Amino acid sequence: MGSLDDTNFTSDSPILNEFKPLDPEEFRKQAYQTVDFIVDYYKNIEKYPVLSQVEPGYLRNHLPNTAPNEPEPFESILKDVQKEIIPGMTNWLSPNFFAFFPATVSTAAFMGEMLCTSFNSVGFNWLASPAATELEIVVMDWLAAMLKLPKSFMFSGSGGGVIQGTTSEAILCTLVAARDRALERIGEDNIGKLVVYGSDQTHSTFAKACKIAGILSCNVRSLHTTTDTYFSLSPTFVRATIEADVAAGFVPIYLCLTVGTTSSNAVDPIDQFADMASSHGIWLHVDAAYAGSACICPEFRHYLDGVERADSLSLSPHKWFLTYLDCCCLWVKNPSLLVRALSTNPEYLKNKPSESNSVVDYKDWQVGTGRKFRSLRLWLVLRSYGVVNLQSHIRSDVQMAKMFEGFARADPRFEIVVPRRFALVCFRLNPNADSEPSSIELMNRKLLDWVNSTGRLYMTHSIVGGVYMLRFAVGATLTEDSHVIAAWKLIKEGADALLAG
Amino acid sequence: MGSLDDTNFTSDSPILNEFKPLDPEEFRKQAYQTVDFIVDYYKNIEKYPVLSQVEPGYLRNHLPNTAPNEPEPFESILKDVQKEIIPGMTNWLSPNFFAFFPATVSTAAFMGEMLCTSFNSVGFNWLASPAATELEIVVMDWLAAMLKLPKSFMFSGSGGGVIQGTTSEAILCTLVAARDRALERIGEDNIGKLVVYGSDQTHSTFAKACKIAGILSCNVRSLHTTTDTYFSLSPTFVRATIEADVAAGFVPIYLCLTVGTTSSNAVDPIDQFADMASSHGIWLHVDAAYAGSACICPEFRHYLDGVERADSLSLSPHKWFLTYLDCCCLWVKNPSLLVRALSTNPEYLKNKPSESNSVVDYKDWQVGTGRKFRSLRLWLVLRSYGVVNLQSHIRSDVQMAKMFEGFARADPRFEIVVPRRFALVCFRLNPNADSEPSSIELMNRKLLDWVNSTGRLYMTHSIVGGVYMLRFAVGATLTEDSHVIAAWKLIKEGADALLAG
Repeated sequence: MGSLDDTNFTSDSPILNEFKPLDPEEFRKQAYQTVDFIVDYYKNIEKYPVLSQVEPGYLRNHLPNTAPNEPEPFESILKDVQKEIIPGMTNWLSPNFFAFFPATVSTAAFMGEMLCTSFNSVGFNWLASPAATELEIVVMDWLAAMLKLPKSFMFSGSGGGVIQGTTSEAILCTLVAARDRALERIGEDNIGKLVVYGSDQTHSTFAKACKIAGILSCNVRSLHTTTDTYFSLSPTFVRATIEADVAAGFVPIYLCLTVGTTSSNAVDPIDQFADMASSHGIWLHVDAAYAGSACICPEFRHYLDGVERADSLSLSPHKWFLTYLDCCCLWVKNPSLLVRALSTNPEYLKNKPSESNSVVDYKDWQVGTGRKFRSLRLWLVLRSYGVVNLQSHIRSDVQMAKMFEGFARADPRFEIVVPRRFALVCFRLNPNADSEPSSIELMNRKLLDWVNSTGRLYMTHSIVGGVYMLRFAVGATLTEDSHVIAAWKLIKEGADALLAG
Repeated sequence: MGSLDDTNFTSDSPILNEFKPLDPEEFRKQAYQTVDFIVDYYKNIEKYPVLSQVEPGYLRNHLPNTAPNEPEPFESILKDVQKEIIPGMTNWLSPNFFAFFPATVSTAAFMGEMLCTSFNSVGFNWLASPAATELEIVVMDWLAAMLKLPKSFMFSGSGGGVIQGTTSEAILCTLVAARDRALERIGEDNIGKLVVYGSDQTHSTFAKACKIAGILSCNVRSLHTTTDTYFSLSPTFVRATIEADVAAGFVPIYLCLTVGTTSSNAVDPIDQFADMASSHGIWLHVDAAYAGSACICPEFRHYLDGVERADSLSLSPHKWFLTYLDCCCLWVKNPSLLVRALSTNPEYLKNKPSESNSVVDYKDWQVGTGRKFRSLRLWLVLRSYGVVNLQSHIRSDVQMAKMFEGFARADPRFEIVVPRRFALVCFRLNPNADSEPSSIELMNRKLLDWVNSTGRLYMTHSIVGGVYMLRFAVGATLTEDSHVIAAWKLIKEGADALLAG
C-alpha cells in the first residue's frame, strides 16, 4: 500500500477508464459471498460474547493510518470483518441480548432494505421517486388501520403519516410545528415564553429536541412521577403545572406522553390529558416507540385509548416490528402544520406535480431534504408475515417475559420493582428486608457487572423512584424460551456467588 | 386475504410458535433471489424511463387498502416490486440520469450496507457497539487525510469526524453548537439577537436548519450573489453586513460557505472569510456536500484552501463517492462544543466506558440517539477501490462534463451560463441574441419538458441571477461517454423541433 503523498496527480493525470464500480456480475458474486457471510454470522451468533469484551481503542491499532492507494480484494476485507470487526460488536441480534429495548430483524425486512438500497432513490419530492412516496402513504395507512387509529391520522382521512429515522426526529419535527403555530400567534420574539411538558420518565431525546428547537431549558418541564402511578404522569399534577405556567405568563405548547417508557414501561393515560391539552391549545404527542407495536393486539390496544384526541403519534417498528434500523412511523392529524414549519421551495426542486399541490413532498415533513425508500422494508414485513404473525410475535415475547417474571417472583431473594406490562421485566436482588438502599444498589450493580462480563447475556439497568433495578427486556428476534431459562439460571448463579462471597 | 376486523384475539389467543422471522437458510434463499432481482434491474436499467411517467395516485389504486392478515409468498411480493414499484421509480441509477446531483453507488458500498444492516447494531454509545464507533473514527480520519485536512479536524489531532445522514443534520448540529456557545455568553433569552449568514445560493436546508434551531427568520441573512463572482459570496459584502449587524446590536454566530453550490457549483473562497469569522467569533462552516469529494484530487484541492481556519466541514459521499444513501461526513475542530449542545445522559444509558471519558459516544454528536453502523460502507469503498480509483472516478466524470460542455459551446444556438467547475454544465438554448428573457426562459422550459417526457434522460433546471438555465449533472455511476453523446443528440433534437415549430 503506497502513501497518500505518492499521489502527485495533475489535471493531465491519466483517467483509469477500466474502473467500473458497478459491474452486475461482480455485484452478484460479491453479494452471494456477503449473504453467505451473514448467514454464517447468524448461525454462529450464540458463540460470540453478547457484550463485546474489547477495550477502548482496540481497533485503531489494528488498522492502517490511511486509506489504501490501491484496491484491495473483497475476500481480504471480509476476512477483516470477521477478524477485526465482529470481536468489537455488541451483538444486538444475539438471542441472549436483553438490554435496552432489542432492535428486531427479519428476513423480509432485510430483503426490503436490499431493494431500498439498490434503487438508491432520493425521494425528497414526489417526482423524484413517485413509488417511494406513494408506497409510504400506503403502508402508513395500513399500519394506522392495524393500530385502529382514527381516520384523522390517515391519508384516507384528513391526516397522514411519514417514516422518520428515529423518535428523535419525530419529536423534533412535531415540536417545531407546535412551536411555530404558537409563534405565529404571539410573535417570533416571544420564543422565551414557550413551555413544554414531559415527565422524568420521558425519553432523553425529548429534552434534546427541545434544546435543538430553541426552547429555553428552564421552560422544559420534566414532571416528577412516583411509584404510586408506577411512574406514569399524573394528570392532576400536569394540569396544575400548566395552569400555574399560564398564570405566570408562559405559553404552553407541547405535551409529550409516553406509552411504554424506556426505564420501566410506564404508560401515560392519554385520554386523561386530552381535555387539558385542547383547552390550552397544546400539541399532544404520544411517543409509543416501543410499546406501540403491541397495540396491534386487541388485548393491548387500550393503552392507546384517547389517541384519537392527540395531535401526533410515533412508533418505531425497528424496536418490535422486525424491520431493522432505522424506521420510526409518525402520524399527524394536521400535516399542513408540519409542512408550514418544515417546507422549503428552492428553484432547483420546483416541478409541476409539486406546484399543483396534488402530491405529497415528504421533504417538507422531516428535518432533511434527501430520504431513502424506507417504506419497502415495512411493506415487505407486513406482507410476508401478515397481521396474525406479527401479533403472534408480540405475544410470544410477552409470554417469555411473563415466564421470566415468574422465575423472579418464585425466588424469594428477588423482587419485581414495577409491574410488568409488555416484555420488559424490572427486578432486583434484595434478599434481606432490612438492607440499606445503597447496599442493595451496590449488590445489584455487582450482579449486573458479573452477568455481563460472562458475555453470555447482556442486560442493562435503570433507576426509577430512586431504586436501582435491572431491566430484562425480552424481544431479540432469535430469543426462545431456552434462552430465557438459561439467562435466569445465569443470573441466579451470579446471585449465589455474590451472596456466598 | 382476510380483513382486519376478523382479528378478534384476546389474551388467551394462541401463540403461533412456528413463526420464525429469521431462519438462516430461508434468509439465504430469499437473499439470493433478491440479489438476482437487483442484478436484473441493474442490467435492464436503460430500458426504463429515467423519469417515471406515472400520474399522482397511481399506486394506491393498485394495492389493497389494508395489510394482509395472512402471510404472502415472497415470490409474489417480488413480482409486485417489478410490476407496481419499478414503473413508479425515477431511476436514479440510470446512466441517463443527469438531474440534481446524481447519487452514486458501487458494489463495495452495497456490500458494506448489507453488513451494516445485518449487524443491526444501535451504536448510540461506545459500549453498545465498540466496532461501529471505532471504525467510524478510523474512516473519518482516513478521509480527512485524503482531503489533506489539517490535524485539527482529525481524531489523531485535536478534532474529529462523525457520519450524519445528510447535510441537513450536519448543518443543524453545528448551528446548534454555535448558537449555544453564543447563548452561554449572552444568556438564553437573547436568542432573538443571533444572526447567521449564507448566500442566496446556499442550499435550502440551511434556512430550514436555522428555522428548526429557533433563529428568527428575519435574522437569517441570505446574501445576494451576482454573476460578477459567478454566484460566490462577496467577502466585502459579508464583512459590511456583519459590521452593520454588530453595530445594530446583533450577535453574528454562524457563516455557511459552500464549495459547489447546488444551482451552479459556485465556490465561496473560504480563505477570504476566515479573518472576519474569527474576529467576530463566528462559527465558519463549509458545506462541500457535492464538490468536496473532488478535493481528493490535487488539481481540485485548492477549492478547500482556507478550510484549516474553518470550524467545520461537511461532505456527502453519497453524492460522489459511490456509497449509496445516506452518508454525510462532518468534521469539527472542537467536538466538545457539539457534545455540550447535544449530549444527554439518561440513567439507562450510563456505563463505565462513557463515564471514564475514554471513549466517543456518537449520540452526543447528532440529533438522534440510535444510529447505524454506516462507516462500514465507507470503509468498504475506500478499501475496495483505493484512492487511485476514486480519483480516477472523479476525473472521468469531469471529463465527460467537459465533453458535454464542448458540444454545447460548439453549437451556436446554445450558451454556457456559468463556467463549468466540476461535473455540472449549466447551459441554455438561446439562438437569437435579441430575444426577450421571458421568451428564452419559456423556450428552455419547453425544451426541458420535452426532453424529460421522452423518458430517455432526466435533467433539471435552476435560476441564477434571474437566468433560467438547464443543469446537466454528470456523475451517475453507470454513465459512460456514449450516454453523454446520446443525451446531447436528444437535446439537439428537441431544440431542432422547438425552433422549427
